[in-house]
Amino acid sequence: MTNKIKVYKKDYDYSYTSGAYATIELLNTKPEIVEAVYIHSAYQDKAALERRCADCSVPYVYDDKCFLQVNQKENSFVIGVFRKYDSSLSAERPHIVLVNPSDMGNLGTIIRTAAALSYRDLAIIAPAADVWHPKTIRASMGALFRINFKCYDSFEAYRAEFQEHELYPFMLGCGRFLSFESCPQTHLFSLIFGNEATGLHPRFQTVGTAMEIRQSGAVDSFNLTAAAAIAAYTFALKNKL
Amino acid sequence: MTNKIKVYKKDYDYSYTSGAYATIELLNTKPEIVEAVYIHSAYQDKAALERRCADCSVPYVYDDKCFLQVNQKENSFVIGVFRKYDSSLSAERPHIVLVNPSDMGNLGTIIRTAAALSYRDLAIIAPAADVWHPKTIRASMGALFRINFKCYDSFEAYRAEFQEHELYPFMLGCGRFLSFESCPQTHLFSLIFGNEATGLHPRFQTVGTAMEIRQSGAVDSFNLTAAAAIAAYTFALKNKL
Repeated sequence: MTNKIKVYKKDYDYSYTSGAYATIELLNTKPEIVEAVYIHSAYQDKAALERRCADCSVPYVYDDKCFLQVNQKENSFVIGVFRKYDSSLSAERPHIVLVNPSDMGNLGTIIRTAAALSYRDLAIIAPAADVWHPKTIRASMGALFRINFKCYDSFEAYRAEFQEHELYPFMLGCGRFLSFESCPQTHLFSLIFGNEATGLHPRFQTVGTAMEIRQSGAVDSFNLTAAAAIAAYTFALKNKL
Repeated sequence: MTNKIKVYKKDYDYSYTSGAYATIELLNTKPEIVEAVYIHSAYQDKAALERRCADCSVPYVYDDKCFLQVNQKENSFVIGVFRKYDSSLSAERPHIVLVNPSDMGNLGTIIRTAAALSYRDLAIIAPAADVWHPKTIRASMGALFRINFKCYDSFEAYRAEFQEHELYPFMLGCGRFLSFESCPQTHLFSLIFGNEATGLHPRFQTVGTAMEIRQSGAVDSFNLTAAAAIAAYTFALKNKL
């Protein structure tokens, strides 16, 4: 293997993990999609990683130069190149729905939080940050490979596929405050969150049951990742996810 | 005013907000510490900002060049230069305690979340990300100016000052899981969180009552900002903050 890795672009049919942790997660969960693992000569734990690659029948390459090309200040010593794959959501489990998330770090962090809270299904409504981008994968700590996710062109396209889920858009000013008591008991629900800067469009007020997290007057809003964590946690506990 | 703004360094006795939102928060909350507001000629809402500055007796300057110097890819059009100030924590309110947080974005996001949840007091145990750094302030959306915060050289130094707070370190593997039922009822508590990569040192097991947030096997841990949001939210609701 002496293929050069090119700096990731959205229209490629492959992407890569950056960093040992996400790469090992990739090998542990989806070895069949991995094309190659690139290891920097300065990486500390070479023997274990080589063994893991061999166990998965994945070729590994030592090539310090390729890290210069693709490492945008990330300082990682391991890269795992993989083919993108199709994934679809379960009709029988709760969903997280992100409408137009714009920040890759936020998207990855929410994937990590969702996976930690036993959610396994994420819908992303375009336009949105690229779920396949190495930055998103890195922020997810590789949890992307452990969940189902699917991008939709519109919320309506998502809804057409899943008509049974109870919908809970999170919107400031709706007046229905989330608490442990008020949290709905339901086995099939979708928690819906809007864009970082603009939130959800007012039309979501009539899409299901709008809820909000009570906040002090000291801030304009919660950070998206914090709001998603709080809501996903409360629904998960209440509904024994 | 034609002072040049230098790229921020930790040992300066001043810092600056980057972006209109944080700068307006600064003017709203701490006008007396503001030295000057710099406005880029491309900023949209000049008249309102000029008026706000005048109301606060704060000089404003149009100087596009200074944005080239200090804007590290942040693309902001407003900068507020201010003098750092002393702040101390209330002995009568709950605290968030961050032990060695290393990422400025995380620190700022936690400040924003804490303020949203009506916490007003944050202790930071060094070594830690710089709470005064423009990146931290930007991630906090200016909420830094609405809370009390103090840096301590050690957890012991913090504890010596506040001996009455019940201590709740958040640590994986302690086996005491946070839920709405298990969440302690107490009016004076400190929620303690460790470093992003290493968590809290095991000695915190015997510092107060260790707790953890239940997580699936899909991830190694929660992101620090998600863990802090979930814990702070649960304690705030339970104790009617």
